[in-house]
Amino acid sequence: MSITLDSPLDMHLHLRDGEMLSTVAPLSAKTFSGAIIMPNLVPPISTKEELLSYKARILEATKGHTFKPYMTLFFKPTYTKEFLESLQDELIAIKLYPAGITTNSEGGVAGFDVEELRPTLTAMSELNIPLCVHGETNGFVMDREAEFVSIYEMLATNFPKLKIIMEHITTKESVEALDRFENLYATITLHHLLITLDDVAGGMLQPHLFCKPIAKRPEDREALRKVAFEGHPKVMFGSDSAPHPQHAKESCGCAAGVFTAPIAIQVLTELFVKFSTIEKLQAFLSDNAQKIYSNITIPKKQISLEEKTFLVPNKYSNVVPLYAGETINYSILEIEGD
Amino acid sequence: MSITLDSPLDMHLHLRDGEMLSTVAPLSAKTFSGAIIMPNLVPPISTKEELLSYKARILEATKGHTFKPYMTLFFKPTYTKEFLESLQDELIAIKLYPAGITTNSEGGVAGFDVEELRPTLTAMSELNIPLCVHGETNGFVMDREAEFVSIYEMLATNFPKLKIIMEHITTKESVEALDRFENLYATITLHHLLITLDDVAGGMLQPHLFCKPIAKRPEDREALRKVAFEGHPKVMFGSDSAPHPQHAKESCGCAAGVFTAPIAIQVLTELFVKFSTIEKLQAFLSDNAQKIYSNITIPKKQISLEEKTFLVPNKYSNVVPLYAGETINYSILEIEGD
Repeated sequence: MSITLDSPLDMHLHLRDGEMLSTVAPLSAKTFSGAIIMPNLVPPISTKEELLSYKARILEATKGHTFKPYMTLFFKPTYTKEFLESLQDELIAIKLYPAGITTNSEGGVAGFDVEELRPTLTAMSELNIPLCVHGETNGFVMDREAEFVSIYEMLATNFPKLKIIMEHITTKESVEALDRFENLYATITLHHLLITLDDVAGGMLQPHLFCKPIAKRPEDREALRKVAFEGHPKVMFGSDSAPHPQHAKESCGCAAGVFTAPIAIQVLTELFVKFSTIEKLQAFLSDNAQKIYSNITIPKKQISLEEKTFLVPNKYSNVVPLYAGETINYSILEIEGD
Repeated sequence: MSITLDSPLDMHLHLRDGEMLSTVAPLSAKTFSGAIIMPNLVPPISTKEELLSYKARILEATKGHTFKPYMTLFFKPTYTKEFLESLQDELIAIKLYPAGITTNSEGGVAGFDVEELRPTLTAMSELNIPLCVHGETNGFVMDREAEFVSIYEMLATNFPKLKIIMEHITTKESVEALDRFENLYATITLHHLLITLDDVAGGMLQPHLFCKPIAKRPEDREALRKVAFEGHPKVMFGSDSAPHPQHAKESCGCAAGVFTAPIAIQVLTELFVKFSTIEKLQAFLSDNAQKIYSNITIPKKQISLEEKTFLVPNKYSNVVPLYAGETINYSILEIEGD
């Protein structure tokens, strides 16, 4: 038996730049039809020139693949409607980071003054540009996301026509918020469907499983699994695959991020099969995103998988992937349209 | 102004063996009058010969210092009263580990069948040998200690004459249990008075702050500080200083333990001064332990400290201490009796 998936989409992806971009971009481009590309470079993508030039570098790095990078800007409250209009063919979403909350987010939003944010968010509503949000306060690490739900609510009520994507959600509180506000959506990563804080710090400390938001409690993972496994229409796959060089992960002061891009579809397949919900994977991995992001066009690609062991490489160049050196149980059989 | 402390005691200390013992033992022996030595070597200390031979190696490593190692056995439910009596001049306490819960604890207790434990615990009660316990279940990492409180209660009620020391407590639940049972006592580490999970995993991941039990929530730290800072008579200082070579901390699968021995008294002084409770440090650091462990004799030593910056070394041999390369604000002025 094989499993065939149409046009998989990764709605939250870090491709970095330079050598790292060349290493990781083809790995996503091989299996995915497209991906929302995070703008947190140094400096972050915030001008038309930066966006177009980054897109060109991504297309160069993924040459030969059927793959569409959906470009984003790093949110600034100073973006005008005219500026956003001038980018409309290229800009798929804008990503909002609270200041200092994760890798390269220093220039993010400090405080959430609705009047300061209003002009840009109103323009985005009018232009139907979704707002992607890294939703964490600077509170205690296990509470940050739950505390941020009140900010999601403030945004959702003040901008009812704005599509707000709660990125890489990790808690039952975020899952519950999904159904309270029509204009709230969410991405969920592979690793947050797999692990809890126990896997990061319950045995030996596992730097390669350290990410932001940090993996939470078993009941949080249950809540995420529930909506992912039922193909909840407001929930999409976003890997948040976040490569760092090995030395930045295995050192004193380890960087946050799990690198899952090359094995995401295989492991998702294994997981959905294991939980007897494989028929919902197409919705989670592509169909829901196509409906939520009505402003994207998707290149056709078909990926077929079979139950066959695959030994995950220890490294891709100098990046250690999830399950490095371990065996996963689904392999890619064929990719059509790449 | 200087601060003088009499006969500081470290009621929970890991000295390891071999080269590591030679590195770390003199650092404790310099400033402390004595310490309860944990028995979790490989293999764990469980015979008279092992105990006496380990004690001799510790005395050799601390030669020239006024320092008493208080020896412990690794708990086994097969210890007879005759065996324990034969050790009574040398044995200060017995340490119970749940199986597999921390470094070198594989041979610990699996399940807590009171009848299986009764003969040894009854003998300990009769001989007035305290039971030191690493109190964690194998549940979710943030819940393990709170879940273990019911086992403390079972032990405390079944063996009302047994002194039970809840080692390195980290939660408000353990603090609350202290006052419910006359025969429950506790040690608290320096690092659990200083940090929460935020310091371990809230920014970058900090392997040198990773320990078992893992640092918990801010309200847990508050509860620990409250009883330590008030000099609660059932609470003693136990550093749980746990050295590992640098490579075992800064790697994939980092070992658990914070190395605090060489700076513990200085940082405790700074902390108690900062919270305007320096007059309680003598109780926390020595007097309470002398009353709880009525079976110890303590060599006289006086340590004087002054407010003067001290640059903590990056390493002691190959072991990275807490605050490596940082400046602390209290220094040792004089040690009398060493």
